[in-house]
Amino acid sequence: MAVGDLSMPVMHPVNGVRIGITEAYIRYKNRRDLVVFELADGAETAAVFTTNAFCAAPVQVARQNLAAAKTRYLVINTGNANAGTGPTGMASALRSCAALGELANVPAEAVLPFSTGVIGEQLPIAKLEAGLPGALAALQADNWPAAATGIMTTDTLPKGASEQFTVDGVTYTLTGISKGAGMIRPNMATMLGFVATDVAVERGFLQELLREVTEQSFNRVTIDGDTSTNDACVLVATGKAGNTPLTSRSGALYEAFSAALSRVFLRLAQLIVRDGEGATKFITVKVEEGGNTQECCDVAYAVAHSPLIKTAFFASDPNWGRILAAIGRSGVPGLDVSKINVYLDDVCICENGGAAASYREELGAAVMKQPEITIRIVLGRGQASDTVWTCDFSYDYVKINADYRS
Amino acid sequence: MAVGDLSMPVMHPVNGVRIGITEAYIRYKNRRDLVVFELADGAETAAVFTTNAFCAAPVQVARQNLAAAKTRYLVINTGNANAGTGPTGMASALRSCAALGELANVPAEAVLPFSTGVIGEQLPIAKLEAGLPGALAALQADNWPAAATGIMTTDTLPKGASEQFTVDGVTYTLTGISKGAGMIRPNMATMLGFVATDVAVERGFLQELLREVTEQSFNRVTIDGDTSTNDACVLVATGKAGNTPLTSRSGALYEAFSAALSRVFLRLAQLIVRDGEGATKFITVKVEEGGNTQECCDVAYAVAHSPLIKTAFFASDPNWGRILAAIGRSGVPGLDVSKINVYLDDVCICENGGAAASYREELGAAVMKQPEITIRIVLGRGQASDTVWTCDFSYDYVKINADYRS
Repeated sequence: MAVGDLSMPVMHPVNGVRIGITEAYIRYKNRRDLVVFELADGAETAAVFTTNAFCAAPVQVARQNLAAAKTRYLVINTGNANAGTGPTGMASALRSCAALGELANVPAEAVLPFSTGVIGEQLPIAKLEAGLPGALAALQADNWPAAATGIMTTDTLPKGASEQFTVDGVTYTLTGISKGAGMIRPNMATMLGFVATDVAVERGFLQELLREVTEQSFNRVTIDGDTSTNDACVLVATGKAGNTPLTSRSGALYEAFSAALSRVFLRLAQLIVRDGEGATKFITVKVEEGGNTQECCDVAYAVAHSPLIKTAFFASDPNWGRILAAIGRSGVPGLDVSKINVYLDDVCICENGGAAASYREELGAAVMKQPEITIRIVLGRGQASDTVWTCDFSYDYVKINADYRS
Repeated sequence: MAVGDLSMPVMHPVNGVRIGITEAYIRYKNRRDLVVFELADGAETAAVFTTNAFCAAPVQVARQNLAAAKTRYLVINTGNANAGTGPTGMASALRSCAALGELANVPAEAVLPFSTGVIGEQLPIAKLEAGLPGALAALQADNWPAAATGIMTTDTLPKGASEQFTVDGVTYTLTGISKGAGMIRPNMATMLGFVATDVAVERGFLQELLREVTEQSFNRVTIDGDTSTNDACVLVATGKAGNTPLTSRSGALYEAFSAALSRVFLRLAQLIVRDGEGATKFITVKVEEGGNTQECCDVAYAVAHSPLIKTAFFASDPNWGRILAAIGRSGVPGLDVSKINVYLDDVCICENGGAAASYREELGAAVMKQPEITIRIVLGRGQASDTVWTCDFSYDYVKINADYRS
């Protein structure tokens, strides 16, 4: 059950990007499970990947290829993560690039591979290869919604965001998709995210912007605290809009592009939480007046990962004792609990580390009934603040993860 | 549903300890919820407490009183944790000591208070006070099983362990109880543990032994990763056996006592996991060949806290991909996944970071069907090893924590 509005917006095509999608029978039948992105010659590509030491074969290959050549194609399969698959898995990831490169007449290094799905089973590379001609034959600029569907695993809905903005009479486009619903505690990126723009951006600057925007979006959401082996996020700048490539943080185009980038990434990241496995609540954990970003995040994640808090939210129980307990175990050095205030939306539930004088149970209960709730924690230690987004923990989370071999 | 044998053994009384239990109506009706321990004059008491910054009022008072005077009484209520209760809660904890001190004719500082139950509600101190005379009137040496029942919260069964051992013709006794089933990731001690012996032990050495044995027992179990605000564990040495007080690690009595201490503490700690909220599996996570204790524990806890692994165990699914993913995100610097082997009991599921050549799904499935399973992770980095005990994550965990205001 997804929380809030997850409807797919109008997905504006990005000049210089075509997408093909086909049924390759990787794991499931009757669904298109193989997606190919074609990027125009001259497009710049930036990417961030999981920090999990057990990173999947395609993550390793994508990282290498990104450094070795200009990227012309992305190939993405769902149903199999090609992780924990050893040398055979690595050969399969390399083979997927070589096969697509041969068909498309580009070097293997110009292809970045991505896989998502079950960990620890060999990728059926012959099936993937057999699907490539069909994916290439299906290349179209307006296939973004189909691609969003094609990369889903336990997602209940496809996820997309798209904006157009006009600077000096020129209209620019930024469009992206993401996927993920479990094993979500991105550390570099989400399970998978693909975003493209026709704005021309110099490659190093593109990578810098991607790192920055990822940090405040995909790297601030968690569903179950389990960082995936396959997290990857790609940002492509085709340059087809014809502007002088952006190289620094100045000018009206940079401002407009940067703002759109933040909104699109945040939307794509939050969509993952809204569609979190079994989620019935969308929870914003905001920590204010911390000494630094690290301690704000430590507190926010202690709260966002607490099974006791997540089950209390599922039950709409304003159990602030569990919130205090999680703050207390977050490891912030010298935490003075007598300075801490906690709010559920606008309702102050804790004041100076104890029950707020004005608090009555029915005020908390009213907030908890809503599907979207903000926990605001004011530490009274400094000027830093940070925000993490998460969801609750329901019967369905257990059901999904006990039943689905993911 | 508890896992394995949790039956209460013969609980040998400890000379110098009497226990009274009564119904004080703190939160529930028709159950005895107030327990008083009386310790003989001359008994030495050691204690360890939660590291949670939001530690409860009784924890703060117990810590102070332990430093200020020789302990003669412990007073324990269930149903209310007296945590997050501010100055009023602190006054209540102090009042409980003063009231018992007056009745028993000892200084207030000779009383250590302990509370467990709901966080964030004021302790009904008048009810507690009213119950004290009844508890004192009920003091008996053989009340250990009743006390184990009296301190329960979401526990389904009382928890006790007891041993007698003979050295040079003298029989010594070690008996203890523990409680806890949720908000369990002790960091110093469990929710509550009370252990007593008639062995004479010098106080400083007693504290040293308690810290050491706690580190390898209560500090190695986790149910949901949520460190409680009220964790406390007490070890009393009454000295009634008449031996020359132990002061160092030598002699036959030290050897026998130390071995019994390890067994009793490990049993009390493991009982908590076996009775973990909603638990259907008892899981031992053993990490070997680590570079040091810290990285062994980091890997073990990443696995023990992963909701994806815990739900897979609930489903009896040998999903080793999730185990690899958790190891990979554990933050061990420079982890070389190609050196890692993973076993479920004796079945090697992963070899050199990939599927073991000899592995077949039915071998893993056979292990997973058992109620007690060991995950053994061999890192191939060094000589250190460590072990953590945990349980699975079931529908009932969600049910219990969504329904119970704890």
